[in-house]
Amino acid sequence: MIPFERSVRFEEVDAAGIVFFAHFLGYAHEAMEHFFGGLDGGYCRLIVERKIGLPAVKVEMSFVSPVRYGERLRIETTTTRLGTRSATLRYRMVRAASGELCADVEHTVVTTDLACMRSCAMPDDVRAVFAAHLAAP
Amino acid sequence: MIPFERSVRFEEVDAAGIVFFAHFLGYAHEAMEHFFGGLDGGYCRLIVERKIGLPAVKVEMSFVSPVRYGERLRIETTTTRLGTRSATLRYRMVRAASGELCADVEHTVVTTDLACMRSCAMPDDVRAVFAAHLAAP
Amino acid sequence: MIPFERSVRFEEVDAAGIVFFAHFLGYAHEAMEHFFGGLDGGYCRLIVERKIGLPAVKVEMSFVSPVRYGERLRIETTTTRLGTRSATLRYRMVRAASGELCADVEHTVVTTDLACMRSCAMPDDVRAVFAAHLAAP
Amino acid sequence: MIPFERSVRFEEVDAAGIVFFAHFLGYAHEAMEHFFGGLDGGYCRLIVERKIGLPAVKVEMSFVSPVRYGERLRIETTTTRLGTRSATLRYRMVRAASGELCADVEHTVVTTDLACMRSCAMPDDVRAVFAAHLAAP
Repeated sequence: MIPFERSVRFEEVDAAGIVFFAHFLGYAHEAMEHFFGGLDGGYCRLIVERKIGLPAVKVEMSFVSPVRYGERLRIETTTTRLGTRSATLRYRMVRAASGELCADVEHTVVTTDLACMRSCAMPDDVRAVFAAHLAAP
Repeated sequence: MIPFERSVRFEEVDAAGIVFFAHFLGYAHEAMEHFFGGLDGGYCRLIVERKIGLPAVKVEMSFVSPVRYGERLRIETTTTRLGTRSATLRYRMVRAASGELCADVEHTVVTTDLACMRSCAMPDDVRAVFAAHLAAP
Repeated sequence: MIPFERSVRFEEVDAAGIVFFAHFLGYAHEAMEHFFGGLDGGYCRLIVERKIGLPAVKVEMSFVSPVRYGERLRIETTTTRLGTRSATLRYRMVRAASGELCADVEHTVVTTDLACMRSCAMPDDVRAVFAAHLAAP
Repeated sequence: MIPFERSVRFEEVDAAGIVFFAHFLGYAHEAMEHFFGGLDGGYCRLIVERKIGLPAVKVEMSFVSPVRYGERLRIETTTTRLGTRSATLRYRMVRAASGELCADVEHTVVTTDLACMRSCAMPDDVRAVFAAHLAAP
């Protein structure tokens, strides 16, 4: 599990006064980039230089408790499934202060050659990160 | 089914050159607001004056085909489940030109009193919209 | 002058309950894309196929009246200066209902070869759009 | 001067491959929240509990060098004018690695009672932060 902390920003709430639901996917992506921070050049170099990406093929989200401006989330990222070319990440988003669960996101990605937008073999260093944080079933 | 069309904007793609996955939830929300466009004062008055919202409790998304800047999506919204206080909306997002499926989103919402953020009875006019577009199982 | 109308979306307000100031630049960009809608393939083809863009070099914004969720803006776009490689667009953003001014944006852009990110000659069709909507001084 | 560092995120670039210009205003706002981080409860409590905000009345931006995914910006925030109810902040946004200027933003705000959206007296603690970082003319 790799933890990542993030405060809710001023412009991330909506007209109902709570974090707009789409932003939780932005938070998940930030946590994923942090998860891959140990790659040489990080997630950025994977995308920009190596031209390999991890587009989503499936997402499942549960929203448990609304989150407001100024609250701080801790996002705990684990791998819940590791396949040949695909993997599933899980992000438990809890209030940093209390540990209370706010949102739970599962995110299945496929290793993709960005030049042709087709699936490709998963690089060893990417696989090693997924494998190192594989949650026990 | 209520259709809604929407072009992908210049700033909605990401560093991989395709629509950032979180934006599909923004598109779903736009389609939901359009879905409720027939309410007196629309979704906006429901939120701002009647202080009733439809926060998400669950989302499931499948991504079938990447979408790029300038493409036009048609979002077909139906109700797939109508409960006492909750309902599930489904958004089939297809290329407007070809009808090819790009993304499929299921979105479960709960009628919520925004003053106290607790579930509340579903207003009759909101129920009527959900009911009118209930898909056959 | 080319007019463009746009309602404020649910997620565009901030924790102070008004449209987050950065979104007015997003609205300006939408109005600019609409302004160039008459190009063959529109602004999108200019960017994606012709690889020519109009990045900003300068922006000046005045905020006159706060705008809330559900309000509808009319954005009136004119050219206020047309140079060799650069031009300045002005966006008057008024309440569609009342004509009351909400925000006024001036946006100077430079014709840019996106492959090398250097200024380039302004294509004739782009110049023609700017010229057709040049405001009297 | 108060410095703030911030990496460009995956979804902040546009179809031209550079940071979408509106996001620089989001970065400015983040830097402003950081600037007021020493207030009791920070900028968040000012907004949410004290119901006082600092909406923009004027913005001037110069864009000097395009910024790409993965680059890290250092934002240097100073006060350039301090009035009775208003003040102007300046954000110099430079590449953290090289110090090269990318964007320069001036942002004039007015102390505002969010309940009625009218200007109000500037609280002493807010004034003290502006005053402590007033740049020499």
